[in-house]
Amino acid sequence: MQNWENVYAARTDRIKSSAIRELLKLSQQPDVISFAGGLPAAEVFPVDLIKKAVNVVLETNSDVALQYGTTEGYTPLRKVIKKSNEKYNINFDIDNIMITAGGQQALDLIGKVFINPGDKVLVEAPTYLGALQAWNTYGAEYVCIPNDEHGMMVDQLEKLLSSDIKLIYALPNFQNPTGVTLSFERRKILIELAEKYNVPIIEDDPYGRLRYEGEHLPPLYSISGQNNNEYNGNVIYMSSFSKILSPGFRLAWMIAPKDVISKLVQAKQGTDLHTGTFSQVVAYEVCKDDFLNEHIKNVCRVYNDRRNVMLDTLCEHMPDRVSWSHPEGGLFLWVKLPDEMDTEAIFPAAVDEKVAYVPGSAFFADGSGHNAMRLNFSYAQPEQINEGINRLSKVIKKYI
Amino acid sequence: MQNWENVYAARTDRIKSSAIRELLKLSQQPDVISFAGGLPAAEVFPVDLIKKAVNVVLETNSDVALQYGTTEGYTPLRKVIKKSNEKYNINFDIDNIMITAGGQQALDLIGKVFINPGDKVLVEAPTYLGALQAWNTYGAEYVCIPNDEHGMMVDQLEKLLSSDIKLIYALPNFQNPTGVTLSFERRKILIELAEKYNVPIIEDDPYGRLRYEGEHLPPLYSISGQNNNEYNGNVIYMSSFSKILSPGFRLAWMIAPKDVISKLVQAKQGTDLHTGTFSQVVAYEVCKDDFLNEHIKNVCRVYNDRRNVMLDTLCEHMPDRVSWSHPEGGLFLWVKLPDEMDTEAIFPAAVDEKVAYVPGSAFFADGSGHNAMRLNFSYAQPEQINEGINRLSKVIKKYI
Repeated sequence: MQNWENVYAARTDRIKSSAIRELLKLSQQPDVISFAGGLPAAEVFPVDLIKKAVNVVLETNSDVALQYGTTEGYTPLRKVIKKSNEKYNINFDIDNIMITAGGQQALDLIGKVFINPGDKVLVEAPTYLGALQAWNTYGAEYVCIPNDEHGMMVDQLEKLLSSDIKLIYALPNFQNPTGVTLSFERRKILIELAEKYNVPIIEDDPYGRLRYEGEHLPPLYSISGQNNNEYNGNVIYMSSFSKILSPGFRLAWMIAPKDVISKLVQAKQGTDLHTGTFSQVVAYEVCKDDFLNEHIKNVCRVYNDRRNVMLDTLCEHMPDRVSWSHPEGGLFLWVKLPDEMDTEAIFPAAVDEKVAYVPGSAFFADGSGHNAMRLNFSYAQPEQINEGINRLSKVIKKYI
Repeated sequence: MQNWENVYAARTDRIKSSAIRELLKLSQQPDVISFAGGLPAAEVFPVDLIKKAVNVVLETNSDVALQYGTTEGYTPLRKVIKKSNEKYNINFDIDNIMITAGGQQALDLIGKVFINPGDKVLVEAPTYLGALQAWNTYGAEYVCIPNDEHGMMVDQLEKLLSSDIKLIYALPNFQNPTGVTLSFERRKILIELAEKYNVPIIEDDPYGRLRYEGEHLPPLYSISGQNNNEYNGNVIYMSSFSKILSPGFRLAWMIAPKDVISKLVQAKQGTDLHTGTFSQVVAYEVCKDDFLNEHIKNVCRVYNDRRNVMLDTLCEHMPDRVSWSHPEGGLFLWVKLPDEMDTEAIFPAAVDEKVAYVPGSAFFADGSGHNAMRLNFSYAQPEQINEGINRLSKVIKKYI
């Protein structure tokens, strides 16, 4: 009988179910109010419009929608994304964009094309867990740079960049997990130093369009590039339909210099041939008449309400010595308990109280963050948020 | 300005657009009759049923269909596949199956989980090009075993297996590219030797249900396993919805021992989180009432006609010293020209005659196969097949 453990590749030592994932399974009971996921609200899915679009697609374009497609992605959809990005100061040619099966695949392809075993990636501390998962497989090592309420603390950047960093990974808008936004001044410093040390930046921006207050800031992609002719910047930009339309379509995009897109496309070919044509053609049909702009306003209204309820309820219920971020957009906020507390240790007690979160240590490449937690405010409805924060504050008060 | 070439990982040296892919671009003109693709016929897509299914899904289950899903795949769909596999002697528990984004992703995940740089994979010569593309990235080396009209020549197997082979890759039914089927006797020998040398088999079976003549043969998966309790066999089985329903859904599945599935699921999590929920829920709705069995009969009728037209026209037009396989199912047949001929060299002449194929060398890990070509008979309509083979024979006659 085969002993499969003996057949696995060495890299699988780094592909593991985390302790935190096991913890989170505890919270999958129907009466638990979970702030742990990163799910959009089902209430904002434009179901009727999608239904209409699917019927049009199947009546007029089924030969394309049900057939194999190109690895770069469905060209009409790429054009729609191009147009919609122009509103956010991101200008590029059609050969600068490819469609991926969600943002996670974009991260995987970046790992595949750029990361040699032992390469150092500069990540924020905390950072998006899924990027670490994607790049662990390719043998990435991590160098951490801390965040404060204005994002990555770029005053520490130059020292770190002098130590042979391969890539910088940045989530400038309403960062997952903290909800903080990188200030304009810091964006400029980040670009300047990345160019000085010749280190490319991966700009991960799934939430940038979900802003509930303040002004939109220019993306790293356009601060770096001149945008006159061929893109000559130092940034690979990625964003997604998951938070602004539907994660069930598994559609995201990457924007990069043409040669880089061409290499990423070749890598994608061996990875999954292409992203689902059916989803792409339906998403095109939904979005082609500039639907997203109006839709995003609606999504922002709903999430802004939920964010405000969470912020208000935190103010009302949380004991002294507990602090939290004030996200101007996105899906998450970040709660810090006193240093001596451990959010992993009190997690079972929270589940006993029927409330769940993600312990902060999940988001630190260096294993710190034991006294923090990530709360999602997009999925639960306002009254549940109110009740859930109430429950959570009881648990914290008990252990503080 | 960034010199991106300097930032790529070493593995990208093996991620390249092939010369043949560049050649094939020549054939993308509307008046070229192409036998080069591996596309199902759009005529057999069950468009009306899919439309009905999508409307049901969006009316009753949109919260699930448009939301994030689990990495293992949508459980009702996994159950439907389980039931449909039982007809083909493949029995397993729900924990033995996962959904992937097409068969190509299954190959990528196998590479990620099993292949260390330098590991030797035994592949048929010729074999499926996409497997080589997927595994090149992970540093696979290939050991080739030739095919004849009964599939892999297993009399050469024992000698090859004694040289530290990590995995065996087999396409037992209507193999891509040759169309040949591995005989039952050879299946038993393959399993026996793989077990003796303790080398797992990857059984790739996207075409097995598309049989136009002869009897269904038991898959390697069930010849190897005892199927009484826990699967104790030596085979990872994979198949796909692409050829029996729609490739645009990007849905395939892998069946393997539970621990192996669990490791593959962890790898998939970092790769793309999960396969598109929308496609999965729609496919479930389409297939839940045993639709596929009837539908496959219809697909087989259409493809059998086209295969017969191709076989008849080859007989009628091809000069002496040209031979071809007689596939009992699937999408492809394999044409051999005299040894001194080179199908890559005459490809431009074929395109001038407005007909295209894939040169045989694309499918050989060792670069041989210069005198062969793969022809697809599922996509072009019968009258086009007739005309296309006529054109092709003219080219061959000119150069023979």
